[in-house]
Amino acid sequence: MITFVGLGLWDAKDISIRGLEAVKKADRVYAEFYTSKLSAEIGDLEREFGRGIEILERKDLEEESWKIVNEGAEKNLVILVPGDPMIATTHSSLMVEAKRKGVDVKIIHNASIISAVAGVTGLHAYRFGKTATVSYPHRNVISKTPLDVVKQNLSINAHTLLLLDLNPDPMTIPEAVDILEKIDDGVLNHFAVGVARVGGNSFVVCDNFYSLRDHAFGDPPHTVVVLGRTVHITEYEFLREFASAPESLSEIVE
Amino acid sequence: MITFVGLGLWDAKDISIRGLEAVKKADRVYAEFYTSKLSAEIGDLEREFGRGIEILERKDLEEESWKIVNEGAEKNLVILVPGDPMIATTHSSLMVEAKRKGVDVKIIHNASIISAVAGVTGLHAYRFGKTATVSYPHRNVISKTPLDVVKQNLSINAHTLLLLDLNPDPMTIPEAVDILEKIDDGVLNHFAVGVARVGGNSFVVCDNFYSLRDHAFGDPPHTVVVLGRTVHITEYEFLREFASAPESLSEIVE
Repeated sequence: MITFVGLGLWDAKDISIRGLEAVKKADRVYAEFYTSKLSAEIGDLEREFGRGIEILERKDLEEESWKIVNEGAEKNLVILVPGDPMIATTHSSLMVEAKRKGVDVKIIHNASIISAVAGVTGLHAYRFGKTATVSYPHRNVISKTPLDVVKQNLSINAHTLLLLDLNPDPMTIPEAVDILEKIDDGVLNHFAVGVARVGGNSFVVCDNFYSLRDHAFGDPPHTVVVLGRTVHITEYEFLREFASAPESLSEIVE
Repeated sequence: MITFVGLGLWDAKDISIRGLEAVKKADRVYAEFYTSKLSAEIGDLEREFGRGIEILERKDLEEESWKIVNEGAEKNLVILVPGDPMIATTHSSLMVEAKRKGVDVKIIHNASIISAVAGVTGLHAYRFGKTATVSYPHRNVISKTPLDVVKQNLSINAHTLLLLDLNPDPMTIPEAVDILEKIDDGVLNHFAVGVARVGGNSFVVCDNFYSLRDHAFGDPPHTVVVLGRTVHITEYEFLREFASAPESLSEIVE
């Protein structure tokens, strides 16, 4: 059996009681940190959980995933994943492969940026549209996907969660703004919320998207929400109290 | 101080280590179950956490929220919430009120249906659009919001998560299908995924939206995802393996 255990957003204390029980009972405990990052060091997790943990690389869950699946047929494996498992396609593909080989797979869910971002910004969870990732330029080409997704979401008056690339190093908000500025046709000249360290010592600022790079967000992980065409009055009030939103945000209160 | 502690999706074992520590240190522990439900009984939570728990009613967090806020100025309060706190507007409004009175508020995040639904359906988290709730008819009037949201999401080729009303009793998938059928103009004659008991003994079926009512989903909570205009090949493969999807789903693989 293979059990994916979510580690939640911050450190070794964010695992659930159910997740910790699975770790203690496992024959072998793996962790993967390339689809998502945790602020804790692996040594902290080992101490807190009382188990040795082996790190999986990208290839272990992709090209060579058959090794893990075959081992899961014999042993009780746990794979620790920051946030909520299965948000990454890598995990769901591995689940399909395991099922086809008759190996049981279980998921122990945990907190994810996908829902937690609503909590720290006060933005209504049901008003978020599609999510996109801002990637580092690849051979000098910048992906237009984040801009396309923002446009699609604006067309239905939805907020856009922009996740920032994690590899080789977690992208910061100023980096993301600089990257997107090079391809923006004006759609990002709009209110946005910058968020750092959700689940830890979080820091949240609402401002014009381009002004976000002038704020000191501190250490990553960082993420950005580009607001929809309008905000609800309760969203406005929350952003004024907790995210230093400018008074001019009132212009888009619906 | 007021600390909102997420209970996650299923029972007393889904709380995080951090959340449990907050419960043990609190002067007083409250819980609210009207914005979301847990399958555990309150007695199970009290036994597992070793603390007495007082249930808050809707009015305690809305009309009379000043009582809780004032108590939070003097004492260390924990408010337990199923899922991830702050998904409900009630919580963010209380946070604003507390901030204005100088009372600290903290959130300890946990798993939410908003992200977990991607895990159990294999649908890509970044392809979900806005979320909507299917409510019971109010004075014989059925809210058109879920249909409007599905249409908006289809216009940008996004999946729609439909949460089902919880009060007075958790709505089932057959009930939701019967309600929406009365106002549907054809948009729901489309593939959908019915999901029961995420985080527990989950059960997932992909079929035409109207055919979902013919499957035996068992106990609630139930939820439905109306698929976008197309699905990715890995979404298709997952739904075939884990959700008994019909082969005809292949017609909308992009």
